[in-house]
Amino acid sequence: MHYLEPLFNPESVAIVGASHHEGKIGHTVVKNILESGYKGRIYPINPKGGEILGLKVYKSIFEIDDEIDVAIIVVPAKVAVEIIDDVAKKAKFIIVITSGFSEVGNIEGEKKIVETAKKYGSRVLGPNVFGIYSAKPPINATFGPSKIKAGNVAVVSQSGALGIAMIGKAAEENMGLSAIVSIGNKADLTEVEILSYLFEDEITKVVFLYIEGLENGRDFLDIIRKRPPGKSIIVLKAGRSKAGARAVASHTGSLAGSDAIFDAAFRQVGILRAESLEDGLNWVTTVALSPPPKGKNVVIVTNGGGLGVIAADACEKYGLHLLDDMEVLKKTFQDVMPEFGSYKNPVDITGQAGGKEYKVALERAFKEKSIHAILALYCDRGDAEIEEIKNALVEVHKKYRNKPALYTIFGGEGATSIITALKKEGLPAFSDVEDAVSSLYALYKVNERKDEGKMEEVKMDEDKIKQVIEKALKEKRRKLLSNEAKEILKAAGVDVPEFYVAKNIEEAIEAANKIGYPIVMKVISEDIIHKTDVGGVVLNIENEKEAAEAYEAIIESCKRNVPKARIRGVEVTKMLPKGVETIVGSTTDPSFGKVVMFGLGGIYVEVMKDVTFRVAPLPKKEIRRMIREIESYPILAGVRGEKGKDIEAIVDTIYRIGLLVTKFEEIMELDINPLIVYEKGAKVADARMSIKVRK
Amino acid sequence: MHYLEPLFNPESVAIVGASHHEGKIGHTVVKNILESGYKGRIYPINPKGGEILGLKVYKSIFEIDDEIDVAIIVVPAKVAVEIIDDVAKKAKFIIVITSGFSEVGNIEGEKKIVETAKKYGSRVLGPNVFGIYSAKPPINATFGPSKIKAGNVAVVSQSGALGIAMIGKAAEENMGLSAIVSIGNKADLTEVEILSYLFEDEITKVVFLYIEGLENGRDFLDIIRKRPPGKSIIVLKAGRSKAGARAVASHTGSLAGSDAIFDAAFRQVGILRAESLEDGLNWVTTVALSPPPKGKNVVIVTNGGGLGVIAADACEKYGLHLLDDMEVLKKTFQDVMPEFGSYKNPVDITGQAGGKEYKVALERAFKEKSIHAILALYCDRGDAEIEEIKNALVEVHKKYRNKPALYTIFGGEGATSIITALKKEGLPAFSDVEDAVSSLYALYKVNERKDEGKMEEVKMDEDKIKQVIEKALKEKRRKLLSNEAKEILKAAGVDVPEFYVAKNIEEAIEAANKIGYPIVMKVISEDIIHKTDVGGVVLNIENEKEAAEAYEAIIESCKRNVPKARIRGVEVTKMLPKGVETIVGSTTDPSFGKVVMFGLGGIYVEVMKDVTFRVAPLPKKEIRRMIREIESYPILAGVRGEKGKDIEAIVDTIYRIGLLVTKFEEIMELDINPLIVYEKGAKVADARMSIKVRK
Repeated sequence: MHYLEPLFNPESVAIVGASHHEGKIGHTVVKNILESGYKGRIYPINPKGGEILGLKVYKSIFEIDDEIDVAIIVVPAKVAVEIIDDVAKKAKFIIVITSGFSEVGNIEGEKKIVETAKKYGSRVLGPNVFGIYSAKPPINATFGPSKIKAGNVAVVSQSGALGIAMIGKAAEENMGLSAIVSIGNKADLTEVEILSYLFEDEITKVVFLYIEGLENGRDFLDIIRKRPPGKSIIVLKAGRSKAGARAVASHTGSLAGSDAIFDAAFRQVGILRAESLEDGLNWVTTVALSPPPKGKNVVIVTNGGGLGVIAADACEKYGLHLLDDMEVLKKTFQDVMPEFGSYKNPVDITGQAGGKEYKVALERAFKEKSIHAILALYCDRGDAEIEEIKNALVEVHKKYRNKPALYTIFGGEGATSIITALKKEGLPAFSDVEDAVSSLYALYKVNERKDEGKMEEVKMDEDKIKQVIEKALKEKRRKLLSNEAKEILKAAGVDVPEFYVAKNIEEAIEAANKIGYPIVMKVISEDIIHKTDVGGVVLNIENEKEAAEAYEAIIESCKRNVPKARIRGVEVTKMLPKGVETIVGSTTDPSFGKVVMFGLGGIYVEVMKDVTFRVAPLPKKEIRRMIREIESYPILAGVRGEKGKDIEAIVDTIYRIGLLVTKFEEIMELDINPLIVYEKGAKVADARMSIKVRK
Repeated sequence: MHYLEPLFNPESVAIVGASHHEGKIGHTVVKNILESGYKGRIYPINPKGGEILGLKVYKSIFEIDDEIDVAIIVVPAKVAVEIIDDVAKKAKFIIVITSGFSEVGNIEGEKKIVETAKKYGSRVLGPNVFGIYSAKPPINATFGPSKIKAGNVAVVSQSGALGIAMIGKAAEENMGLSAIVSIGNKADLTEVEILSYLFEDEITKVVFLYIEGLENGRDFLDIIRKRPPGKSIIVLKAGRSKAGARAVASHTGSLAGSDAIFDAAFRQVGILRAESLEDGLNWVTTVALSPPPKGKNVVIVTNGGGLGVIAADACEKYGLHLLDDMEVLKKTFQDVMPEFGSYKNPVDITGQAGGKEYKVALERAFKEKSIHAILALYCDRGDAEIEEIKNALVEVHKKYRNKPALYTIFGGEGATSIITALKKEGLPAFSDVEDAVSSLYALYKVNERKDEGKMEEVKMDEDKIKQVIEKALKEKRRKLLSNEAKEILKAAGVDVPEFYVAKNIEEAIEAANKIGYPIVMKVISEDIIHKTDVGGVVLNIENEKEAAEAYEAIIESCKRNVPKARIRGVEVTKMLPKGVETIVGSTTDPSFGKVVMFGLGGIYVEVMKDVTFRVAPLPKKEIRRMIREIESYPILAGVRGEKGKDIEAIVDTIYRIGLLVTKFEEIMELDINPLIVYEKGAKVADARMSIKVRK
């Protein structure tokens, strides 16, 4: 049994701050619990005593001679802090509906609540929540609407007002809920633990999660990765814009991470991200009501050519595949076609089609094995056939149910009445065809299980890496010198061409001779960022004489241009031949921690912003996917007669960087720019690294 | 008075094929005309005579002793062709509702109808339409729903079933219509003439056009360009996908042009293109109900933080600007804020806000001059305040109406009831916040009047161009030789570096000496496409000796590799220094005719597909906009310390190409690839051209 079972399926609940006055939250919660048909024991608590809605009111929690699974606190914030010790002594789970905590700067009060609960082994949901509904007991312990239909969709919302509105919306849309949980300030229980319960819960098929931020992004991704087959999740992550992020900051105090990284992390584990509430709710409903499609072939059946064309456009936009096997289409639909109809897909059964024609065409579609999903469209003509159409669709759908079938009814009053009827019967029905197509896309997406691949063992010289980092830490240098960054990369097994640090002309010449010409020299100094601008770099050095001149020129020029710079020496390394310049980087995200980045170098990253992210570390299979994501990928794969480049060498580099930054968490930022990729191999031409200096 | 006035405001109508049987189209049309309150004279025609719905039925059109403004034909296709001569003699306008013409291959019948009408000076709407509704008389001469609310939105639909469904949808959404016109097969009257009427019509404020193809794209763009101030148009152009285009082909036989060109053409004249029916209808409704915004500052007022964040995200996505002047926000909203509220934008008046709070907050927003548009959001809590909220919103909105205000009500039954009430009162109201934001975006967009700029006079050596083209035409060569293409470009005033055609070594050397080294030589032959692959190009020729060798090498290699090639000589020209390689092209589109294209060369066009189109010719102002559209534009403007390139030289080149291809329509395809752009100037390095050979 999951440890959150008593929260979702309590045997007893206490309402701390139950009210005698209708309209008060403390009254509504009691009323909703009663009206939801809860079979467990209910203990309203109020110092005034008496009765509420026929229930005995206890003056104190200690008057209750029973174990309390869930205590719901609705008293004001100040009082909540005062009584938390008493409540935590008695209750396993405490739902703090009360607001006025960290979301308005009252961090102390929130801390007190969580710490006190912890002392007694209790767990806290909230504060600043609207409560919880769970279909299992059933119990509606919220102050939202009282009417909730049981079903297989769980809603988890960080926003209270939105969550309550969603309860209403669910009822309006005839969407059945297995649970609805408000997580509010997430002071103790977060979406991670709630999801771990819901994925185990046998009633829940799909979770709709609304969040504005994530503090523990990695645990979140892990829970999603480990969810059992048949459990789906759709996430609406708001606060993606700068303006939105500002609103988040003033709303729940969450830290909104960079949106590109959220997108990448979600993609990495196969989370479907909704862009709007409408999409999210449509998608969840469709997933809740539909079997997974068994193949890619979609058929559109329509009575209006125009609507069919719009649907086909939308299918292409969402990457859905329209069945185009003319023989199958002809065999399946030709003899159900009225004159002027078309069995081509979109299958146009014409404006003359009534209930009978729809019934026959849809039966054929349900029966034909090479059709895997159906989009049935109907243009309402404002005539009297509404009832026939309605009955035909419901009858056929209920008879088969063997493949997904989504319905779009476009038009006036008649259309609205068909949609309402279909929804009532549990058919996914829409008034806009784009909504239907996007929902079918979502159904395909949530049923694609993502396999990121397996991690492999690689060798790294960890002692060497530690040593370099320790030295910089001791000197309190946040930015590593370029030779230090290269040493770390080399120790991590990345292909760094031979390099030396020369402190005088002799050393420079010796190094150059050892490496072999042509070579490059670069100044090493933590005080010089744009080396080229101050004459700190000499390329294409061809012989000893040029090497000596270059060394002197670099030292002279840097001293003249940046008189105060600490010059640590000159790096001497091979001048690399031309290849495709790429960038491999890593940064530290507030939600997901270490992430890696990849893109083509120069213009592609700077102008085209053509880069891709992943949460690190990650297996090579996923890295290959990551690399293929960039727009400029064909340049690596080979275009215009050029041979393909060594993509596996990039994969290996990213793989090692992913491991490096997760093993050595001090590395906050890392850039290999460029990593030059050849037909065989990929070499580091330049690198930067910064670490977290201990205070 | 517009010449289509009798079609939209007829004094008399005849229904050819009026039926005595309820449910038949010939009956429904008569019924709808009567029920719409039409005040003109109605003449049902049916050889059986008698009465229909109390109207005398005429046995033949010649029995009617009256002028007929509009005759509506509903008899079968075969009969329609037989009687068209009679009808055309009597009626100014003929609406052919009957289907079974070109859309199913009956091109002859359709031709007969149009030609006969033309003979008598009549005009035809259709065939294959559902009729026309016009608010002015009023008259509902369709076989669709009978209930139509008069208003300021005109709907023009190429698809019949969709158009009829839209009538129903409009009623359901309380959208008032000024006209609804079905254009069907567009055998005579097309969207162009219909639009020219609607833009002059004083009732119509905004047109919603559904099309699947355009035959006369240029006239269409001209009508849109010339529309009077205050008239807007939103277009849903379907058949954008390959699958969609196939559906179009089987549906109305329209030629679906390339979608990128439709997008570009629409952008060029400022047509707002909707991607879905839902968006289109939401946008049209909002434009119909709202004044144009007077500035960019949007304010969001919400009772739920979460919904506010989602709205702010959507605003960023659509490029809307949230007012961020904290002083104004504080001054306007601080003292209407409950505890825990936030006057930052999104302005959060908290879950405790009722009708009173909304009323005050919105009044403040309407009154504050630096707020230009309002997004009011409400999360339904399922409580009893529904009536108060509804009244508050309606009251304040109707009192001010001085700026756009869009409403989103999210939640259950209560939300639905508020939305219905707001729509009834003429407020733009939505159940999804993204819909509201996208509609506000549309309102901004349709009110941006596009100024493409003015055409300028440029000199071209037209005789020279004619002469080159004539020569190729005579020889029936579709592809011009590269030197011919360059001659034409030069004559058009494009910067083509000096070049000569050498037929022997002596000529080659003479040319090279004249031009000055380094030079390039290229074989000239209509039979060799990939010149480099067969040794037909030598670059970087530095002196006379190399020039002689190069000439011989080219001739020898080409003869060996392509023995049957007709070699016309060798082109000798300057080896151009490095610069930014761009591509300037032109093609001939089935809908819009001559179009020009621009992009960066090489990888950018081949891999990144980073190109942009326009309908030609076009003024320089619009060309500058076009150039700025490509993603890689910063490379031209100057990045990474490089100086900006001569964008005006590109502008001039595209300008001349636009004029060239429109003046010389024989030029079907043209590529300047690359046009090398420098800090000063832009030069043609290579060019191709193909012409339309006369049969």
